[in-house]
Amino acid sequence: MSTGSPVGSHRVVSPAGALPQAADRLDPDPRIADDEVRIRVERLNLDAASYRQLHTAHGGDGDAIRADVRDIIERRGKMHNPVTGSGGMLIGTVDAVGPRSPLGLKVGQKVATLVSLTLTPLHIDDRLEQWDGRSEQVPTSGHAILFARSIAAVLPDDLPEHLALAVLDVCGAPALVRRVVARRADPATVAVIGAAGKSGSLSLAAARDAGAATVVAVVRDEIEDARLRWAHLADDIVIADATDPLRLARKVDKALDGRGADVTVVCVDVPGCEHGAILSTATGGTIIFFSMATSFSAAALGAEGLAADVEMLIGNGYVPGHAEYALDLIRGNAHLKDLFIDRVGEES
Amino acid sequence: MSTGSPVGSHRVVSPAGALPQAADRLDPDPRIADDEVRIRVERLNLDAASYRQLHTAHGGDGDAIRADVRDIIERRGKMHNPVTGSGGMLIGTVDAVGPRSPLGLKVGQKVATLVSLTLTPLHIDDRLEQWDGRSEQVPTSGHAILFARSIAAVLPDDLPEHLALAVLDVCGAPALVRRVVARRADPATVAVIGAAGKSGSLSLAAARDAGAATVVAVVRDEIEDARLRWAHLADDIVIADATDPLRLARKVDKALDGRGADVTVVCVDVPGCEHGAILSTATGGTIIFFSMATSFSAAALGAEGLAADVEMLIGNGYVPGHAEYALDLIRGNAHLKDLFIDRVGEES
Repeated sequence: MSTGSPVGSHRVVSPAGALPQAADRLDPDPRIADDEVRIRVERLNLDAASYRQLHTAHGGDGDAIRADVRDIIERRGKMHNPVTGSGGMLIGTVDAVGPRSPLGLKVGQKVATLVSLTLTPLHIDDRLEQWDGRSEQVPTSGHAILFARSIAAVLPDDLPEHLALAVLDVCGAPALVRRVVARRADPATVAVIGAAGKSGSLSLAAARDAGAATVVAVVRDEIEDARLRWAHLADDIVIADATDPLRLARKVDKALDGRGADVTVVCVDVPGCEHGAILSTATGGTIIFFSMATSFSAAALGAEGLAADVEMLIGNGYVPGHAEYALDLIRGNAHLKDLFIDRVGEES
Repeated sequence: MSTGSPVGSHRVVSPAGALPQAADRLDPDPRIADDEVRIRVERLNLDAASYRQLHTAHGGDGDAIRADVRDIIERRGKMHNPVTGSGGMLIGTVDAVGPRSPLGLKVGQKVATLVSLTLTPLHIDDRLEQWDGRSEQVPTSGHAILFARSIAAVLPDDLPEHLALAVLDVCGAPALVRRVVARRADPATVAVIGAAGKSGSLSLAAARDAGAATVVAVVRDEIEDARLRWAHLADDIVIADATDPLRLARKVDKALDGRGADVTVVCVDVPGCEHGAILSTATGGTIIFFSMATSFSAAALGAEGLAADVEMLIGNGYVPGHAEYALDLIRGNAHLKDLFIDRVGEES
């Protein structure tokens, strides 16, 4: 094979002209193009929404779930759940590197892919027989292909694998928060809504790291409050329902002496948080929406209807250097690391 | 009545605690609070999607459409189509101004509201009898309420009313384009996708006005190409299908000598334009999505999957001074004005 398309369109079988994510079917031919990388797959981490759908559809029958996933991969050449539209990530070892690959990977490195399985050519050769279908973690063997514009992170050897994966899964958030907070002319006030979760707690740490003046954590209840309190990641912790816009904004305002936040970060994965985030943000401020439950039109019409001069960013999961930055935040902050270990639990 | 909530939550009848847009029902009591404004309504402009839904639901029967709209307004206290979730705008004359209203309006001024009808308390007193139900334009009489944080534009007397309304309807786009283009360190290259429409052509003019280095217009076909060509609003015009990402990006790249655009503006109101916009944008560039057909998750996952370091903005329809800026662009550019007059046709 010669050089491929950097975005992998040469691997699309159908429909013609589509990008890999939009394609029905990819070609997982193990022969790589000059700018591709082949990974020997060890484990798939199915996206939580995808696994939940499969579990429900098959009434929790592990054998049926396994057969369905096998069928999807064999039919589509990728693990792209046609119902949820989501995929997940995979872990494996670099098996072959094309001479013109720009990813900087070396044969033998253990990596996690940071682009979705929905666009990653994948072939399995064990019929998923190592998996009982009862968990999102799918031990398997086979191969996957990375394109020139893919992203993979080398797993660090100083952190437990499950901890590193949990961090890498959300590593776009802290990198974008750092960028937005750091570029403001004056030290910013920052509110993180949904601050007790993975992307939320990393966002708190990134805001501090970027020189925020004040960091306010918004959490759902006393349990999350207690969990965050001993981690010392925020200047103030506020308990509020993110879907109740007026109360949320009042509490954030109060924590910030009557002004809204200069930067508001939304990490709550439930619908209906757009208006609360808009009202919690100061004039001239920026909102970063990381939640996939965000409604584009609710945000756009909401800001207009509230005459809110705020800038609203769609949380892009890719920022150069995002994986290393997120891992460094964990390495440099024992409280944050403990919070993550507490979340990933016995797995690590 | 004393001072109301600046966002109008004191007008919400149900459900309690909601913002006016999310409310089932508003109270259009004509007695205004200290910071409110009452408008004597002359005409409603129903949102195109809303009227299309009503037209289809009633098989084009004007009487049935009229009865349905009357019922919605009487039941909800606002013209908020429960199926499409959309509203429209209204035109009227300022009737009363509370002493603490910050909107700067004076009794007798003719205004258009720039916040959606979905959050504007509205009462009609003519049972819509002046309207035949056969057009989005609804002549009527009644009153509407503006809150402290509402927005209304005084209709200029140097432009035909229909022309001014067509401009005001999309005035958020040029103001945000100007801001994003002007703040870049170097003169930016700009691509406007869907450039022949109202928001698209205003965005072209705003990009030039903000000092863009090169402005590329992307249009659908030869008809739009011809319409734009004599208006001289762009340095180059490209015909491409915005939903075919690879071809779109190739054409934009070619028009910009092999680099993507520093700023890409999406004004095409069809789904599936996210990936093409991402691929058309240079590393470090910004995409502004104005289309309500934009999918938040397609944009977020698309940028991540393409390892694209681009910033993606949700097009906020409110930027301070947006109405005056858009009208000034029209006043200052005879070609742009002709293009708009051509669109609004005989109505003006």
